Amino acid sequence: MEKNFFVKSHGLGNEYIVLDKENIDFELTKKAIQTLCNVHFGIGSDGILLKVPSEKADFGLRIFNPDGSEAEKSGNGLRIFCKFLYDYGFTKGSKEFSVETKGGIVKAKIEKEEKGKAKIITIDMGKAVFDTDKIPVNINDKECIDYPLKVEDKEFKINCVSVGNPHCVILVDNVPEMFDEKQVKKYGPKIENNPIFPNRTNVQFVKVIDKNTAEIKIWERGAGYTLASGSSSSAVASVLYKKGLTDSDITIKMEGGELKISLDKDFNIKMTGEVQEICKGTLSEELIENIKE
Amino acid sequence: MEKNFFVKSHGLGNEYIVLDKENIDFELTKKAIQTLCNVHFGIGSDGILLKVPSEKADFGLRIFNPDGSEAEKSGNGLRIFCKFLYDYGFTKGSKEFSVETKGGIVKAKIEKEEKGKAKIITIDMGKAVFDTDKIPVNINDKECIDYPLKVEDKEFKINCVSVGNPHCVILVDNVPEMFDEKQVKKYGPKIENNPIFPNRTNVQFVKVIDKNTAEIKIWERGAGYTLASGSSSSAVASVLYKKGLTDSDITIKMEGGELKISLDKDFNIKMTGEVQEICKGTLSEELIENIKE
Repeated sequence: MEKNFFVKSHGLGNEYIVLDKENIDFELTKKAIQTLCNVHFGIGSDGILLKVPSEKADFGLRIFNPDGSEAEKSGNGLRIFCKFLYDYGFTKGSKEFSVETKGGIVKAKIEKEEKGKAKIITIDMGKAVFDTDKIPVNINDKECIDYPLKVEDKEFKINCVSVGNPHCVILVDNVPEMFDEKQVKKYGPKIENNPIFPNRTNVQFVKVIDKNTAEIKIWERGAGYTLASGSSSSAVASVLYKKGLTDSDITIKMEGGELKISLDKDFNIKMTGEVQEICKGTLSEELIENIKE
Repeated sequence: MEKNFFVKSHGLGNEYIVLDKENIDFELTKKAIQTLCNVHFGIGSDGILLKVPSEKADFGLRIFNPDGSEAEKSGNGLRIFCKFLYDYGFTKGSKEFSVETKGGIVKAKIEKEEKGKAKIITIDMGKAVFDTDKIPVNINDKECIDYPLKVEDKEFKINCVSVGNPHCVILVDNVPEMFDEKQVKKYGPKIENNPIFPNRTNVQFVKVIDKNTAEIKIWERGAGYTLASGSSSSAVASVLYKKGLTDSDITIKMEGGELKISLDKDFNIKMTGEVQEICKGTLSEELIENIKE
């Protein structure tokens, strides 16, 4: 592996640069991260995945946002990182291994490979939590299921869950007009910032197709209308399973692609999806000098 | 050189991917270009520079925009391409060579190298033309110098020139408040779309510092407020030289960086500036399969 080797990959259009801490000859400062993630002056990506040593798991991972801050977890980021570990021989061919992140230890499994490269990967996404004080949602009930929320001219029946971050899941049976980008963009931010959500919330509008399939539109907290999201898929699957509308294994279809979510009876979530490598190479010396300055 | 080798570089934050036609095993279709230039599903860039054979010059270059259309020329693109030719041994160490583009044959010179890599490069930018019917500008005069143009509450003295595309250069002596991003964004589009410019126009607001230096703010036709532009720098230098305000060699300072412009008495333009390599590597097989589909 050459010095300053990198890989860029994406999962459903959510792209990351992977670096190995033991193989880069510069410090991954805030400036370095910002430059690398900038499409004009660097490679360009939604974040950086840094392979670090771990004492508790097979591998260690630190995840950085484009602004240089550190993230606790990212479903797409984890799948991309696991593909990197498998494809470049770090797992020595093993298809099951563990990764320590700031958000905890995650188990990963390579479900399918093609020509020696991981294609479909399953990872732990933690546990869905319905307690309103943990999500948090400021209502008197212990859980927030089919709770009526009036927003301007509409009354939504909201279902709230945390999968590490707060989600508000709305079935569109009673509001079919909401399965539309324009409507999501109009009501999404009003729900996100509704005072009953002290930490704001992600919002999903859901159409159940059958016992094993649902289609969703996503309004992401702080990011807006988004084409695909692992945590949104996990939240929707958990709510639908809890309400008995779908089985424990379900495919969530989004505009950006699909993810498979698998739940156990305690709402432990496994997420399965594809990852695609875009390119691999080395960071140029000129870039690194610029980063160091 | 590995199959499907690529280099990504930028000049003043304008970034390109360089590929060699003889070294890629896929067709550079519209879909391929769009995917490669997309930061989420590809590398991400302002365009692609494709090395092709040439019978008329030392090297051939085709320039593609992110939408898949072909461009005639790009100052930053040309410098990036010339650095690639030099750095990867195509020029066999020669520092002067010619490149055939759709916009004509361009002479290039590596002005400065560091550790065997080209750092500062000079290229031909063609000839500045002041004839109003060639720019074009719809006024009765043969040239458009200090022509009064009223836009809402302001009267500008405009100077028009073509350097392959139309430019409207405004010195801020009489309108010092115009050397401000907000003002440029307000009046830029009104000038760009003024009916006297049948093909619309680029707009520059200029502060002359001394005989060899000017500072500019840029409103780019079709693109808006922009941090650096080679053709804008060329246009401004040509107007200032014609008006006797600066010498034939001038440094144009922009928010994104600086370029040196050198003119001869016939207004043939040479542009000199820095280029920085970001990364190099190979496009992944998975990406290429996706492009081919």
